Amino acid sequence: MTLLQETIDAIRPQDDAWRDKAKARLDQLTMPPWALGRLMDLAMDLAGITRSIRPSVGRKAVVTMAGDHGVATEGVSMYPQEVTAQMVHNFVHGGAGINALARLVDAKVVVVDMGVAGDLSPLAEAGKIISKRIAAGTQNILQGPAMSREQALEAVEAGIEIAQNLGPDVDIFGTGDMGIGNTTPSTAIAAVVTGQPVAELTGRGTGIDDEQLEKKTRTIERILEINQPDATDGLDILAKVGGFEIGGLAGVILGAAAGRKPVLIDGFISTAAALIAQKLAPEATDSMIAAHRSMEQGHQLMQQHLGKAPLLDLDLRLGEGTGAALAMNLVEAAVRVLTEVATFEEAQVAEASS
Amino acid sequence: MTLLQETIDAIRPQDDAWRDKAKARLDQLTMPPWALGRLMDLAMDLAGITRSIRPSVGRKAVVTMAGDHGVATEGVSMYPQEVTAQMVHNFVHGGAGINALARLVDAKVVVVDMGVAGDLSPLAEAGKIISKRIAAGTQNILQGPAMSREQALEAVEAGIEIAQNLGPDVDIFGTGDMGIGNTTPSTAIAAVVTGQPVAELTGRGTGIDDEQLEKKTRTIERILEINQPDATDGLDILAKVGGFEIGGLAGVILGAAAGRKPVLIDGFISTAAALIAQKLAPEATDSMIAAHRSMEQGHQLMQQHLGKAPLLDLDLRLGEGTGAALAMNLVEAAVRVLTEVATFEEAQVAEASS
Repeated sequence: MTLLQETIDAIRPQDDAWRDKAKARLDQLTMPPWALGRLMDLAMDLAGITRSIRPSVGRKAVVTMAGDHGVATEGVSMYPQEVTAQMVHNFVHGGAGINALARLVDAKVVVVDMGVAGDLSPLAEAGKIISKRIAAGTQNILQGPAMSREQALEAVEAGIEIAQNLGPDVDIFGTGDMGIGNTTPSTAIAAVVTGQPVAELTGRGTGIDDEQLEKKTRTIERILEINQPDATDGLDILAKVGGFEIGGLAGVILGAAAGRKPVLIDGFISTAAALIAQKLAPEATDSMIAAHRSMEQGHQLMQQHLGKAPLLDLDLRLGEGTGAALAMNLVEAAVRVLTEVATFEEAQVAEASS
Repeated sequence: MTLLQETIDAIRPQDDAWRDKAKARLDQLTMPPWALGRLMDLAMDLAGITRSIRPSVGRKAVVTMAGDHGVATEGVSMYPQEVTAQMVHNFVHGGAGINALARLVDAKVVVVDMGVAGDLSPLAEAGKIISKRIAAGTQNILQGPAMSREQALEAVEAGIEIAQNLGPDVDIFGTGDMGIGNTTPSTAIAAVVTGQPVAELTGRGTGIDDEQLEKKTRTIERILEINQPDATDGLDILAKVGGFEIGGLAGVILGAAAGRKPVLIDGFISTAAALIAQKLAPEATDSMIAAHRSMEQGHQLMQQHLGKAPLLDLDLRLGEGTGAALAMNLVEAAVRVLTEVATFEEAQVAEASS
């Protein structure tokens, strides 16, 4: 049996008995019923995922995966492809957005080369990043599949291995991405999985204009015509129109879910990975927490398909795991509410009249 | 000259030169333009408020003010009036929602008795709370004004003094409230200041049903007919239909603004205080940050009147300063983005093609 199949088999939905135990305590806290709203919903989710009414979320890791995309040569981004490798160096030096926000919430940033076009082997040899590189970027999906089915499986299993290896030291995962051009494959994945028209899902990525937006929409429509991904088969979608970092992140999500750990899904690209993970193992969805709603058009439709409402809505559109890092504070807040607030009985406060 | 007038005179709008300096750096960060959206807007606000591109926000205090309301005898809340004093004890023992969330962001909780019906003098004598009590609760605003104009001034100046006294040790303030029945005066204030119909502004408070909601709306309409507050005069509105904790919080906001410190406005009651503060000193608005959008109906209209979009929207409706405490993490995040993320030049990353 493959690692992927073993992992899928290990994934369970949230445990209703633990959700109920959490709810029983939350209902007794010294405040009007459900007065902390979505923090209390989140506390129930965390209890259901971790099988505990004292969920541990103190040890945090954002797994930021980088990969390049053959389609970047088609001018789908404002930035040259070298930026992917340059940003990996920036992550390693601690100068990127994700570094600043991860430090704030005391999260580790685990940088993974899933298939960057440049040579990052010195960083891998120095232990600064993890190398799981499948190839020097995907093939151009305007001309055929991004990768072989074997490479798709390899990418997902690389992510599972990372989640498994980090598992003993990590209570909660966040996902993050870096890859010039990766809104194009992510939009293609979203179109296949949600069944929504490409025009509804296509956004401005890192800042393209109207004409470029129109071109990007037509490009993605052509990508789907050329590759004809099988909407029922997560690995086929990933192989035909995906990316190495997207597959790796789907694996991280599955690995976290199999380990009964919550995983914060970052923005547009991470949500494409979550859609692949959901396709491979629908019950993994129960371990996912939508960190934020991106500026990127289509993100809302993707989150609706996942069945998740985001915690934050701050017009972020960076990726890297920045939204996931920000939302980690809200996850900790939910745990504090569940574990630190006194009940009416404990505090001797009068309850509401019925 | 009164302390209030001195304070109003000291308040300045945000400084555009410092906003521009912040923007110049944010535009050069290693990310697509404005890719961290509202965190970057917030960073500009913090620079404009504090006159610094390295704003200090590490030393945090939530000022949670408690007061009772004569109108509580009219059955406008599900909870008996004793709960106000009981919750003050809960704050002091660290068992309330605000305690749990303030600990998470390392904020001090400063509890103030602005006029609770019960006797809290032992807590004040023990230094556990600050006593600025004006009276044992306001008068019943269905029968006449909540307080005299002198008491209204006294309440606002008490808040100013607290902000001034805390000032040397606090970089950022949050507001919080506790007072059984205080959505009724807050809604009345909102109706007077925004000019919106009472029915549009009236919500379910801590959980009343349809019939009670209808009764509450009619009650607030009667309160406005009876008291006829002068919509151009913040102290008159506060005296006629306000509350001691609402006046105190308006003072904290003015004191923070005069000290060029950002102040996070919590939920419905704190926003009523912010409307009073804005009426007294329109330029104080520039120092306010709307922490969250409450479940309470009308909050959105009040925030629109203030000209503020909330950072969080998590269906909170507790008060106490809980939303302000949660949002403190986002304020720190904004500062980290401004001060810790590398520029393209620093990190040697290629910029977008123009």
